[in-house]
Amino acid sequence: MTQDLAAVEQQVAELRAQLDALHRRVPSNKLSMVVFSGDLDRALAAFIIATGAVAMGMEVVMFFTFWATPILRDAGKKVKDKDLMGKMFGAMLPKGACAVKLSKMNMGGLGTTMMKHLMKQKNVASLDQMIALAGELGVQIYVCELSMELMGFKREEMIDYPSMDFCGVAKFLEEAMDSRVQLFI
Amino acid sequence: MTQDLAAVEQQVAELRAQLDALHRRVPSNKLSMVVFSGDLDRALAAFIIATGAVAMGMEVVMFFTFWATPILRDAGKKVKDKDLMGKMFGAMLPKGACAVKLSKMNMGGLGTTMMKHLMKQKNVASLDQMIALAGELGVQIYVCELSMELMGFKREEMIDYPSMDFCGVAKFLEEAMDSRVQLFI
Amino acid sequence: MTQDLAAVEQQVAELRAQLDALHRRVPSNKLSMVVFSGDLDRALAAFIIATGAVAMGMEVVMFFTFWATPILRDAGKKVKDKDLMGKMFGAMLPKGACAVKLSKMNMGGLGTTMMKHLMKQKNVASLDQMIALAGELGVQIYVCELSMELMGFKREEMIDYPSMDFCGVAKFLEEAMDSRVQLFI
Repeated sequence: MTQDLAAVEQQVAELRAQLDALHRRVPSNKLSMVVFSGDLDRALAAFIIATGAVAMGMEVVMFFTFWATPILRDAGKKVKDKDLMGKMFGAMLPKGACAVKLSKMNMGGLGTTMMKHLMKQKNVASLDQMIALAGELGVQIYVCELSMELMGFKREEMIDYPSMDFCGVAKFLEEAMDSRVQLFI
Repeated sequence: MTQDLAAVEQQVAELRAQLDALHRRVPSNKLSMVVFSGDLDRALAAFIIATGAVAMGMEVVMFFTFWATPILRDAGKKVKDKDLMGKMFGAMLPKGACAVKLSKMNMGGLGTTMMKHLMKQKNVASLDQMIALAGELGVQIYVCELSMELMGFKREEMIDYPSMDFCGVAKFLEEAMDSRVQLFI
Repeated sequence: MTQDLAAVEQQVAELRAQLDALHRRVPSNKLSMVVFSGDLDRALAAFIIATGAVAMGMEVVMFFTFWATPILRDAGKKVKDKDLMGKMFGAMLPKGACAVKLSKMNMGGLGTTMMKHLMKQKNVASLDQMIALAGELGVQIYVCELSMELMGFKREEMIDYPSMDFCGVAKFLEEAMDSRVQLFI
């Protein structure tokens, strides 16, 4: 019977090892988003989801890439020493959250102005207010280094945000692999 | 030896508690989709995925927001008492599934007509037929309350659908956190 | 006490069964992507994520559908016997990875040319190079059969790619259900 007990103990140890292994494969209570689009509507959706998720106790990581990168530019900051391409992208892409437009019904800016007016009237925070709120709530923002380089953006022209880092796709994947929810917006 | 047995029993109880905790962290066999786009092509993709997932035994939850909201309007229903903004959005946004257009190659409606013709010829269900099928199959639709309010839509102008509810982002996140698959379309 | 031991053995067997059941519900270290968009920028993002994920040890499955399908056409292959609709789609949609355009700032092709020039200058692989790399790394590509049929594409006009198969939505869902990360691009 001592042998029997030893056998059970052995089985329990094996179960524990399996459980630990499984534990490492189950993702954390985290939400990872790739924010790819530079449209006002999609950016709003991303931040409404991000701040909502923090309110529900989730950790939130946003990875800004391509057209979404200029949303994080600070309209008040000026950068010198850009090359020709950097100057062109800088001039053609929106300068910060207040400058982005709706993906549809923009109508030369009229639709975007209407939507902003409506949001104010209905007490919905504006995009720059939502970004500030996300920062206060601890939402982590990563900015894609490749996008920064291709568009010629400099780190010193981005907004002041509590937890903003610059990284490559590996960092996003690492976070996404450990997230319960992943979205590409 | 009685002590040894008690120790093993204690270990088994601990394992059970850990297993139960892990169990709660593993998502259900559910698919959650944010349908954000109001384009015919993306809406078709969303419903093809939704109905396919039900056929494979998954539970499916669709969360309609922003430009996708008007897809669920009923072309035959009229609503009074809208304010000016509501009337403008109502007039400018498509009235239901039969009125939405392709995101590309629309060519003033010609491309959309061609695609619909092709789909009929190849025996592919139309968008409104797919919505009806999704309803029969038990696909749950949530409509974003904020989008309804911003665009001035009233509940009584939406289609009759077996399980349609109106909710905020928290409801979507709750479902997404418990879903094996999440998509933003 | 023999009874007690038997009871513990019974409990351990139950735990093992529960653990096995849970094991089957935890997804594999896999990334599944629906590539829906036919834009150069989104296709680049998809392949940067795909190749990055393989480099991190993940299995990667890409499901090409709708506007993304023509990205996989081989510009050098000609196909006969297409019907009128097939010829029209064939002529209007881009012929392969080198022909796709940016979703924004295309400016009649100038923006796309600028971006390609920039990518070359910064030593970023072009889209067709990335597709070739993905093939070498073992990224599995599925092409949506319904899209092929609707757009009148033939299998013999697609690129030579190591692991390309043609399938329906069920195959994608099967892969997505078993994936840690799922994205709709």
